Amino acid sequence: MGAFHTVSSYLIHRLYTHGVRHVFGVPGDYVLGFFGELQRSNLKLINMCDEQGAGFAADAYARVNGLGVVCVTYSVGGLKVVNTTAQAFAEKSPVVVISGAPGRNERIKTALIHHRVRDFDTQLKIFEQITVASTIINNHQTACREIDRVLNEALRYKRPVYIELPRDMVSLPVTPYRQTIKETKRHIEEELEEAMNEAISMINTSKQPVIIAGVELHRFGFQTVLSSLLEKTGIPVAATLLSKSVVRENHPLYIGVYEGAMGRKEVRKYVESSDCLILLGTLMTDIDLGIFTARLEQGRSISATSEKLLVRYHAYEDINIEDFLLGLLKANILRRQDVVTPHPPPPVRSEPVVGKQVSVQYLFQSLNAFLDDNTVVIADPGDAMFAAADMTIHGETEFLAPAYYTSLGFAIPASIGVQMARPELRPLVLVGDGAFQMTGTELGTIVRFNLNPIVVVLNNLGYGTERPMLDGSFNDVPLLRYSRIPELLNAGRGFDVETEDQLDEALRSARAYTEDFCILDVHLDPDDRSPALQRLSHALGKRVKARPKK
Amino acid sequence: MGAFHTVSSYLIHRLYTHGVRHVFGVPGDYVLGFFGELQRSNLKLINMCDEQGAGFAADAYARVNGLGVVCVTYSVGGLKVVNTTAQAFAEKSPVVVISGAPGRNERIKTALIHHRVRDFDTQLKIFEQITVASTIINNHQTACREIDRVLNEALRYKRPVYIELPRDMVSLPVTPYRQTIKETKRHIEEELEEAMNEAISMINTSKQPVIIAGVELHRFGFQTVLSSLLEKTGIPVAATLLSKSVVRENHPLYIGVYEGAMGRKEVRKYVESSDCLILLGTLMTDIDLGIFTARLEQGRSISATSEKLLVRYHAYEDINIEDFLLGLLKANILRRQDVVTPHPPPPVRSEPVVGKQVSVQYLFQSLNAFLDDNTVVIADPGDAMFAAADMTIHGETEFLAPAYYTSLGFAIPASIGVQMARPELRPLVLVGDGAFQMTGTELGTIVRFNLNPIVVVLNNLGYGTERPMLDGSFNDVPLLRYSRIPELLNAGRGFDVETEDQLDEALRSARAYTEDFCILDVHLDPDDRSPALQRLSHALGKRVKARPKK
Repeated sequence: MGAFHTVSSYLIHRLYTHGVRHVFGVPGDYVLGFFGELQRSNLKLINMCDEQGAGFAADAYARVNGLGVVCVTYSVGGLKVVNTTAQAFAEKSPVVVISGAPGRNERIKTALIHHRVRDFDTQLKIFEQITVASTIINNHQTACREIDRVLNEALRYKRPVYIELPRDMVSLPVTPYRQTIKETKRHIEEELEEAMNEAISMINTSKQPVIIAGVELHRFGFQTVLSSLLEKTGIPVAATLLSKSVVRENHPLYIGVYEGAMGRKEVRKYVESSDCLILLGTLMTDIDLGIFTARLEQGRSISATSEKLLVRYHAYEDINIEDFLLGLLKANILRRQDVVTPHPPPPVRSEPVVGKQVSVQYLFQSLNAFLDDNTVVIADPGDAMFAAADMTIHGETEFLAPAYYTSLGFAIPASIGVQMARPELRPLVLVGDGAFQMTGTELGTIVRFNLNPIVVVLNNLGYGTERPMLDGSFNDVPLLRYSRIPELLNAGRGFDVETEDQLDEALRSARAYTEDFCILDVHLDPDDRSPALQRLSHALGKRVKARPKK
Repeated sequence: MGAFHTVSSYLIHRLYTHGVRHVFGVPGDYVLGFFGELQRSNLKLINMCDEQGAGFAADAYARVNGLGVVCVTYSVGGLKVVNTTAQAFAEKSPVVVISGAPGRNERIKTALIHHRVRDFDTQLKIFEQITVASTIINNHQTACREIDRVLNEALRYKRPVYIELPRDMVSLPVTPYRQTIKETKRHIEEELEEAMNEAISMINTSKQPVIIAGVELHRFGFQTVLSSLLEKTGIPVAATLLSKSVVRENHPLYIGVYEGAMGRKEVRKYVESSDCLILLGTLMTDIDLGIFTARLEQGRSISATSEKLLVRYHAYEDINIEDFLLGLLKANILRRQDVVTPHPPPPVRSEPVVGKQVSVQYLFQSLNAFLDDNTVVIADPGDAMFAAADMTIHGETEFLAPAYYTSLGFAIPASIGVQMARPELRPLVLVGDGAFQMTGTELGTIVRFNLNPIVVVLNNLGYGTERPMLDGSFNDVPLLRYSRIPELLNAGRGFDVETEDQLDEALRSARAYTEDFCILDVHLDPDDRSPALQRLSHALGKRVKARPKK
């Protein structure tokens, strides 16, 4: 423990030790004392406009940094980050939710103190549904142990946790404790040996093995292990939408994003004709798998996740992805040479035609050619995300999108989280007009903290993903002149883009203008959509209209 | 039942029967089928920019109309209205949350379908914490009964309920049933007689009785009963912040808002020196009661709520507010004549001084003078709400503010709910700059549906309520040029107000311009606050800094 600690200083100290440098939040009276402590600490407070924005920013920060924190007040703050925390749970992002709360001595049964809903623990009960660990710090003697227990669970499962801090606990001195919690490693040597032998034999006797690199490789930081494995084995690799960029996309063994019928045909064909699918940390989610159009036969699969290892139809319950990956690295695996595989097509850069309306296809071709090693692409659900699937992410940069939980409004606040964690990267934010209206107000935060994303609004006047499923005026989104927003904020540059030459000029200007944010209002035909979205909408539309047989 | 019904048409039919005419929401694929049904129905769909806005609008609509509906998609929609639903629970507003959901045949244990968090019933479990009734409609034979059960609970308790609609249920035909649910009225005649005798004797022998008219009178629609009671007895009446406007504020017997040390001194003195406090439907909440500075002695009180009747220190568990009110109306109560009471001061209208900076006090004097019979005042928490406490609400109009749960960002979306329910009223929306940045985007919805509120932004560059408790840069709110927003939306009129004469001119123009919304950016000194807020901050600040004795 070292120095003398209070509850708050210990919590801050432990967050710092785990690599946290920024805390995203909105203050309120129940958490004000802790905000004061944060401001005096070596963590930087990032005030957001709304708690929803803070939750998304912390989620993105956690994905990039390994741990993220959102700090809010009781109920009116905490209950506003239920959705963002649910997303972090669903997509394995380790977010620590810290909520202020009434003091222990205010918790009298009959007191109707402000922000109280039903019982004092209503908020705790809600967060128990969407976190892997939760606690109310109401005893300064056990506070350290509780804080460590909960943070360790976040790191272990890469999922959110909840810490409630009654305001009269903040300044109490804590009792040090000896960290004696040791992971009791079970004896799994024999199980591991059997599993590895079986997997290696299956891989070595296969004709066309392929790795599907899943999102857990990203969350647990196994990108380098994956690189070594590719180097060693020469086996081709695909990503999923949720894990896109976990391997650099100009890697010679990279074939593209696999997403069933939604993705590129040649990727689908190559993957589905494989006689040995090696799924590493892959969550089997519907959108990732092209709304169940994927054909990944279990009888030809090996699937390792943080929970267990599946070989064909049987499970090794004690073997997790880390054991398996390290086992593969040590094993004697046949090295493949000169495998012929599909590759992502190189960025095509068509010359802009003056006066020609921008299409979705042209937009994404231009954006793809625009990417460089310092660009991080952050896509909101919708065509922004689906069309972005075939962009080529460079080098060590990132692609972020909530490809499974698909909550609209993620991208703009996420860009704040990403740029705080990786200030050397410039975010390219792709967002639909519907999503923009949910969290676009966080551009104010972007200005406040001197960030410089390039925000591309895919302005097609509505929820483009839904129109082909079932249309109605409920899919319309009100008009907003996005390019005028810089005038409101006294900062940034706006561009109105209707034609190919305007897009060309706007992207060129945006690259040159790095002082603060740029926003491109790209006017698209409401009926224009990417081929991927067309296929997706077709599959989803069937379900919207489905009437079960009686 | 009458005509043939499907699950959706029955639900819509029952909502209509209960007086609902508008549904607030945001579509998503799991609820798209039901949105299609809504659009074909006699309910009007009000699309909002974000689910948070939809939740607040439905809450406001429920307060004014008697029942409100918010309709969203699974998880990414539903979990965004947890906070607004919690507010409706805390402040007794009957909101029906309708959430689309995966079809029954999609609910396979291992399916990671999009928007799923942990289990398929995670969202239901969360809503069980913040509603009085909840259901998943998964059986078309019991659907009608379930829908009626849940709606009846909303109406009975004036609190939110939750209906989850798997998408493959929407079009299924329902089985009619006979409504046999009858409230089994217990035999309470003798208990009622004893309670009434005691209460009436206490009232008739008192020297200075006073009624505290609480929020339940508003929620259960007992305003007329209250008027008759005042007429009959001549007893003076005060309101609370949460119930403000439940009696017209130019009523001769109305003395003002009672809120302990926060309110007007003469109201406090009159109420606290009463020897018979008649509390009708009053929730004892902290902010309402001036953060526990209220001195309402139970030994001199009669308190009737929807749950029970308290006379001094004993309870009549079976007597609710309706029985009690009707009992009082029939009883032989001494009529008071010529009681001398304090009255709310008449609006003061100072002449504007050219070039003089607007103060909070001047602003509220001007707004008070600006009110007419067609104005409904909607205040966001913060000085917008506290300073508004002493405005004089006219005639039959309304004053809305989340005075207990105090969730920022309520007012702008609430104005949409109110104006849909009461199109003859023009909302005067009072909102701080911090709150504006949370839900101000709903001005787009206001333009879309042709509404015309006057939005007054109290722009003091931060969270003014928190500064005096504990200040830091975390209380700052980014600059936004609110008066330029009409340019973004191609509608509305904006006014930059720094001086008294500019305020005068802006209010005059806003009154004349009724075509769509007006927004006044009123620049206030960050250290200027209303006397009520000064007193509140002082009381709250003590708790922020409180360190309990060890």
